[in-house]
Amino acid sequence: MPAAKPAEQLRSDGSLRHLLTLEGLPRATLEHLLERASHFVAPLGQMPSRNAALHGKTVAIMFAEPSTRTRVSFELATHRLGADVINIEVQLSSRLKGESVLDTVATLESMHVDAFILRDADAGVPDLVAGHVASHVSVLSGGAGSHAHPTQGLLDALTVRRAKGRIEGLSIAIVGDVRHSRVARSAAQAFTALGAGDVRIVAPPALMPDAGEFIGCSRHESLASGITGADVVMMLRIQKERMAAAAIPDEAHYFAEWGLTRERLRLAAADAIVMHPQPMNRGVEIASDVADGPQSVIRDQVRHGVAVRMAVLETVLLRGDQP
Amino acid sequence: MPAAKPAEQLRSDGSLRHLLTLEGLPRATLEHLLERASHFVAPLGQMPSRNAALHGKTVAIMFAEPSTRTRVSFELATHRLGADVINIEVQLSSRLKGESVLDTVATLESMHVDAFILRDADAGVPDLVAGHVASHVSVLSGGAGSHAHPTQGLLDALTVRRAKGRIEGLSIAIVGDVRHSRVARSAAQAFTALGAGDVRIVAPPALMPDAGEFIGCSRHESLASGITGADVVMMLRIQKERMAAAAIPDEAHYFAEWGLTRERLRLAAADAIVMHPQPMNRGVEIASDVADGPQSVIRDQVRHGVAVRMAVLETVLLRGDQP
Amino acid sequence: MPAAKPAEQLRSDGSLRHLLTLEGLPRATLEHLLERASHFVAPLGQMPSRNAALHGKTVAIMFAEPSTRTRVSFELATHRLGADVINIEVQLSSRLKGESVLDTVATLESMHVDAFILRDADAGVPDLVAGHVASHVSVLSGGAGSHAHPTQGLLDALTVRRAKGRIEGLSIAIVGDVRHSRVARSAAQAFTALGAGDVRIVAPPALMPDAGEFIGCSRHESLASGITGADVVMMLRIQKERMAAAAIPDEAHYFAEWGLTRERLRLAAADAIVMHPQPMNRGVEIASDVADGPQSVIRDQVRHGVAVRMAVLETVLLRGDQP
Repeated sequence: MPAAKPAEQLRSDGSLRHLLTLEGLPRATLEHLLERASHFVAPLGQMPSRNAALHGKTVAIMFAEPSTRTRVSFELATHRLGADVINIEVQLSSRLKGESVLDTVATLESMHVDAFILRDADAGVPDLVAGHVASHVSVLSGGAGSHAHPTQGLLDALTVRRAKGRIEGLSIAIVGDVRHSRVARSAAQAFTALGAGDVRIVAPPALMPDAGEFIGCSRHESLASGITGADVVMMLRIQKERMAAAAIPDEAHYFAEWGLTRERLRLAAADAIVMHPQPMNRGVEIASDVADGPQSVIRDQVRHGVAVRMAVLETVLLRGDQP
Repeated sequence: MPAAKPAEQLRSDGSLRHLLTLEGLPRATLEHLLERASHFVAPLGQMPSRNAALHGKTVAIMFAEPSTRTRVSFELATHRLGADVINIEVQLSSRLKGESVLDTVATLESMHVDAFILRDADAGVPDLVAGHVASHVSVLSGGAGSHAHPTQGLLDALTVRRAKGRIEGLSIAIVGDVRHSRVARSAAQAFTALGAGDVRIVAPPALMPDAGEFIGCSRHESLASGITGADVVMMLRIQKERMAAAAIPDEAHYFAEWGLTRERLRLAAADAIVMHPQPMNRGVEIASDVADGPQSVIRDQVRHGVAVRMAVLETVLLRGDQP
Repeated sequence: MPAAKPAEQLRSDGSLRHLLTLEGLPRATLEHLLERASHFVAPLGQMPSRNAALHGKTVAIMFAEPSTRTRVSFELATHRLGADVINIEVQLSSRLKGESVLDTVATLESMHVDAFILRDADAGVPDLVAGHVASHVSVLSGGAGSHAHPTQGLLDALTVRRAKGRIEGLSIAIVGDVRHSRVARSAAQAFTALGAGDVRIVAPPALMPDAGEFIGCSRHESLASGITGADVVMMLRIQKERMAAAAIPDEAHYFAEWGLTRERLRLAAADAIVMHPQPMNRGVEIASDVADGPQSVIRDQVRHGVAVRMAVLETVLLRGDQP
């Protein structure tokens, strides 16, 4: 695949066209998206927000990595704004490398697809596509390699803001396999841009990101140090093969050293909230009674995910009609 | 998977919340569903019934067993009531055992899914889920193990009622592999509750259910005995591996002994109807000329299936909005 | 599978009921479809045409061969006319041979499906189904074996007409593996019926169709001879296994002899247009700079594909409501 230069996410008038990464987005853009998303949040048991703002638009969801959660979240967000959805299960990375993914996208563009939502293990795919679509078309990343998951970062920011009333000045710990996590990268970028006081990277040395990344974040190599006094504790999913890299023999050892238990959670602020992007490994990175406990906002994150994706789709697609 | 205690299907005011089994449902509930379903039945060649009663609702269809027929029937029923449908192909039994199916369902619930339609080879899955969802959420079984297939039982009852004008007093033969059939269980429960005169279980000894089941039904170990004078002959699909258990060497031998032919059908009442839940093994449990013959109501069963599923979705979901 | 006799595509009043092949269709029918399709064409960057003409109708898309492009094109066409779509991924050829595909179709028909769109490697499947559905139901071929791909032929005709203003009298070269191409067959039938002056079949001898086919077309065994002076150059996709049959050792050799380059394109008329049904093998049957060059109308073909499918669906389904 050609080396992807970062595609320009903003139009010349400063409006949002693509959403590929939160890195470098103006704070005003982030604030706008969170405010729009807030309008779309509805309590469970009530009808979800919906309108016909995107009636007549067509959105293609092309996921090369399986993800029921994120795919369904984007699909419901699109339905609830009145647009048509096309689901395309592709092996972008293997089958559609380089030019041929561009042919597929060009084909769909010719069928009046207005936005592409792409997920791929290869971080460059959404950027590559964004660099080639027509000027009226938008590209959204649904998660790209270990690089970026911008709508997840936004939903994490929305969840903190709604739970704590603000992001400014908060201490936020991101715990686990930070090195390989697109969730961690996008969340840290959002928290930093929105004025968090102390964003803490908490990871075993082998899973700590390189020094040039997570600029402005503090680093902690023990769970206790990392979460003490934190207002927000965000746990990451750990994969078995990554434990080996960190010289952790098995899930039980990982839980013993890095699992968030009720006891350890007492180190955080008394009103700290607990987050997890899911899917969870219960009993590995998080104890079940913490995941389901009173400080957990994990289900709110999911609910906010639909609202954030509605806000992003509305923002990029409605602007597209303006002269 | 935790042992599933039967979930309560009715709300405290007696309204239907879940539909997991027909066993124990009040006759008034069955009658209400059949009456509503009758309103939704339309002749072929005319437009199907549709309305916007469930506009704004979201229904997730999660089938772990492949079933084009039942999945499409539920999907069309949902569309025709104006609700959004999310199709999720899962391996509930293998991948999502125990807690993790509950995490997946909780995630979808957080995205404002109002009803889950679950099909699984494991009879306990729909009950398990129904025991854990929020109070405004409904769970419908789309077929669970050999235990229950309640919407199939309802469509069978609707088909008999519309073809014969009544169920009260009729002789209804259910023929074939009754032992392993969720269709037989749900149908027999419906017919019995609605006052059928004689529900006959007709099966080779090896495929006869245990004595504690099908209470109130008569039992017949030959086809001739079982269908003589019957008003309704419902044939079941036989699977090859089950023939072996019944010491029947092959499909030809099964057909010779248990297949419904035109000759044998003359043993039933002159105006008897023939039913089959499909997919059919033509030339095994049923002769093609019977399946397509004048006494067959097999295609009506399919048509009534959509109507029954509309009635069930409307009943459980509209009530959910009431205080 | 039973030998399929060609199903009658027209109703007794001459209106179009099925679309299985363009062969033998009256020119007036073709003209009507192209005119309706023209109404549905919209420029990229504008909203696509849509209306609610088919609201309440249900269309089942059953593709046994994978084809994102054609499936999505039919799906969007259906959505944009307001009908419901059911996607069924089937192995028609392997799993549903003979009677059982008919049982599946009969089942869906009983659920008020109004039209079936079928794609299969077996050329006889759409005809077989068309011969068995109820009189109010329509069957459209989405591509059948190497036999027919009628909506592709229509979109090719629409593209030529819109690019050149007419089809009458044009020289149109169809180049490559004509022998195995359903695209070539349907396109040649459309061009011939609509009065093209010279439809040229251009292929290596091993990939040339039998003498009894492509009646009225001229035949050329070299690219230079075939495209010289042509107004339209339509390149076909070549498959590796077919090169071997033509004694062409590899893709590079194919390109050297049969690939359309800028230099070779100068042999055609100065205002010739270049077409390709996609997916393209860039650098095999067509050079990238030709595919993306100023004479290419390949992306228009895709856009016209949705419009043509809307015209076909509208034509067959709205007539179905008439007495």
